[in-house]
Amino acid sequence: MSIKPIQYHDGICRMIDQRLLPTEEVWLEYTDYQGVAEAIQTMVVRGAPAIGVAAAFGAAFGARDIAADDFAGFAAQLEKVCSVLAATRPTAVNLFWALERMQRIAKEHCQQPLAEIKERLLQEALNIAAEDEQINRTMGANGAPLIADGSRILTHCNAGALATGGYGTALGVIRAAVESGKKVMVYADETRPFLQGSRLTAWELHRDGIPVTLICDNMAGALMNQGKIDCVIVGADRIAANGDVANKIGTYTVAVLAKEHNLPFYVAAPISTIDPALADGSMIPIEERDEAEVTHCAKTRLAPEGIGVRNPAFDVTPARLVSAIITERGVARGDYRTSLAELLAKQD
Amino acid sequence: MSIKPIQYHDGICRMIDQRLLPTEEVWLEYTDYQGVAEAIQTMVVRGAPAIGVAAAFGAAFGARDIAADDFAGFAAQLEKVCSVLAATRPTAVNLFWALERMQRIAKEHCQQPLAEIKERLLQEALNIAAEDEQINRTMGANGAPLIADGSRILTHCNAGALATGGYGTALGVIRAAVESGKKVMVYADETRPFLQGSRLTAWELHRDGIPVTLICDNMAGALMNQGKIDCVIVGADRIAANGDVANKIGTYTVAVLAKEHNLPFYVAAPISTIDPALADGSMIPIEERDEAEVTHCAKTRLAPEGIGVRNPAFDVTPARLVSAIITERGVARGDYRTSLAELLAKQD
Repeated sequence: MSIKPIQYHDGICRMIDQRLLPTEEVWLEYTDYQGVAEAIQTMVVRGAPAIGVAAAFGAAFGARDIAADDFAGFAAQLEKVCSVLAATRPTAVNLFWALERMQRIAKEHCQQPLAEIKERLLQEALNIAAEDEQINRTMGANGAPLIADGSRILTHCNAGALATGGYGTALGVIRAAVESGKKVMVYADETRPFLQGSRLTAWELHRDGIPVTLICDNMAGALMNQGKIDCVIVGADRIAANGDVANKIGTYTVAVLAKEHNLPFYVAAPISTIDPALADGSMIPIEERDEAEVTHCAKTRLAPEGIGVRNPAFDVTPARLVSAIITERGVARGDYRTSLAELLAKQD
Repeated sequence: MSIKPIQYHDGICRMIDQRLLPTEEVWLEYTDYQGVAEAIQTMVVRGAPAIGVAAAFGAAFGARDIAADDFAGFAAQLEKVCSVLAATRPTAVNLFWALERMQRIAKEHCQQPLAEIKERLLQEALNIAAEDEQINRTMGANGAPLIADGSRILTHCNAGALATGGYGTALGVIRAAVESGKKVMVYADETRPFLQGSRLTAWELHRDGIPVTLICDNMAGALMNQGKIDCVIVGADRIAANGDVANKIGTYTVAVLAKEHNLPFYVAAPISTIDPALADGSMIPIEERDEAEVTHCAKTRLAPEGIGVRNPAFDVTPARLVSAIITERGVARGDYRTSLAELLAKQD
C-alpha cells in the first residue's frame, strides 16, 4: 500500500514532512490555513497534485474560522484565504485549480447557512483528496500498457504517492504496470537541488518493493547511451494547451536525451494539471527558489560566497519532445492542441 | 595569478586538499610515494593533468627511497612503485603517461650512478609540473580565439588550475580569453556527486575575478533553451585516437544538449591526454566510485538504505559531438583520426 502523504481526521490535517525523508518520518499537524500555506511554501508538502489537495484543506480550515454575518462577507474573507494559499508557489496549476473549485462550491451554495457551506467545503477537500488517489489509479491503468515487461524506466523528481493524494502519477503508472504482473526496474534521478529523487522516489519505491537504482542527474545520458534505459516517465506541474510541459528542473534535459536515444518520453498528470488558458509553455511562470538550496546541502556550504547562483525550480519541455501525455481520461498523443482539448471536453 | 595546487620544496610535495575547498584551504604535505598514491585515490588531488604531476612526484619519492645495488634492482623496485601509483585511478591517461615518462628517464640514464638517476627523476617531476603550466598557457592562446567577446560559457566539472600544474585546460582557455581583453561569464555546472563545479571551479574563477554563476547539472538544458549559453568548454581525462572524449560524468549529456541547441562544444586537453593506442572511446576504462558519494553529502545520508546506486565517475562523448579539441600543439577539428594524428606527429 503506497503512502498517503496528506491525511485528515477530526479537524486536523497531518502531512509527512517531506524535507526530512528518508531518514526521519515525521508527521506535522495543521489546523489553520496559515500553517497549510507555510507547509506548501517550505515544501513540507510538494508535488503538483499534493499541493492542490493541501490547499483544499487549507481553504476549508480558513473557511471554518471565518466569522461573518452573511455570504458576501464570508466570500470576501474566503477570497483572502485563497489568495494567501495561492501565493505560496507559482508554477503548479493544481493549486489554483483546487482553490477555484473550493470557491465555486461556496458560491454554488450561497443560499445555504454559512455553517452548512463550511461543512460542504471540508467535504469538498476530502473529495479532492480521495478523487486524486482514484484518478491516479485510473491514470495508472491507462498508462500501464505503455510500459513493456522488463522495462528499465528512468524517472525524474518525485511524481509518486508523496506528490499526490496517493499512488502517484508517473510512479502510479509504474505501480500499475507492476500490479499487472510486469517486472520493471526504475532509475531515479536524484534531482538536485532538493533531491526529491534520492530522498522521496527511492524511498517510496523501495518501501513498496519496486527495484530502484539511484543516479545523479548527470548520469542519465551515459546510461541511455549504453542502452540501459528503455523509457522515461515523469509527472507535470502545468501543461499548456499545446502540450508543452512544465515540470521539475532537469525534465527538459531528460527529454532531449530521450529524443537523442529514440526513447519514449511519457508524461503522467491529471486533467487538473492542464491549463487550457495558456496557449504554450512560454507563458508558464517559473518559480526561482532560494540560492541556499544550491549552495548548501545538509546545512553545509558547498560553494564559495560571492558567486552568482541560479535556482529555477522548473523548466518547460516542448510538446514535440513528449511521446504521450497519460491522464485519467485517456492518453493524448500527436497534435496535443486537439488531443488534450478532446480529453478536456470528455466527461469523467 | 591562478593557484598552483601541487608545489614542491626541499623534499616535500604540498597539495591543497581539494576535498575541503571552498570552505577550508588546507595544504597537505607528502614525502613518500604511498602518501601520494593515497592522495590521488582519495581525491585530495584530482584532474587528469594534476594526477599526472602528482604521480611524477610520487615516482620521484619512491625512487629516492629505493635501496638497491645496481640498476636492475633499482628498475624492478621503481616498477613496483609505479604500479602502486598506476592502480589509484583507471580513467585519466595522464597518470600512465607521467609514470612511463619517469621510467623512461630512468632507463635512459641506466649507466649513471643511482644517486644521479634519482636526482634526474626528481628533476623530471619538476619539469612535468612546470611544462604542464606552460602547456596550458599555450593551449589557452590557441583556444582563446574560439571564445567570442561577451560569451556566456558553460563548463562542467573543474578543468582549471586546480586540475593541472597551474592555469588550467578548459579554464585556461577562458583565462586566456579574459587576458586578451574579452568579457566573458561562466556558468559552472555543480557536477554531482563530487561537486567539483561548485567547490572548485566557482572558487578558482571567483578568486581570479572571473564572473561565475553556479547551476545544478540539470539546469544547463533549460538555460540553453532560453538562449543564455553561447558555448561549452570542458577538459578531458582521456581522448581516443578517433576523438572520443572521456571526461567527468555528465559531459556526454552537456554535449548532447549543445548539439540540440547548435552550440559549439570544445574540449581543451594537453597532448598527453590523447591515447593513440585506443581506437575509440568504448575501450576507455570507466572508474565506478563508492556509492556513498551519491547517497551522502557532507556526511548526511540523502537516500534510503538498501537501494541500488550507480556512480560511474566518467562518461564518453563521441567525437561527432565535439566541435574542436584544443591542445598546446594546435586545434584539431573534423576527422579526428587525421587531425589528432597530425598533432601527435608534430614536434613541440
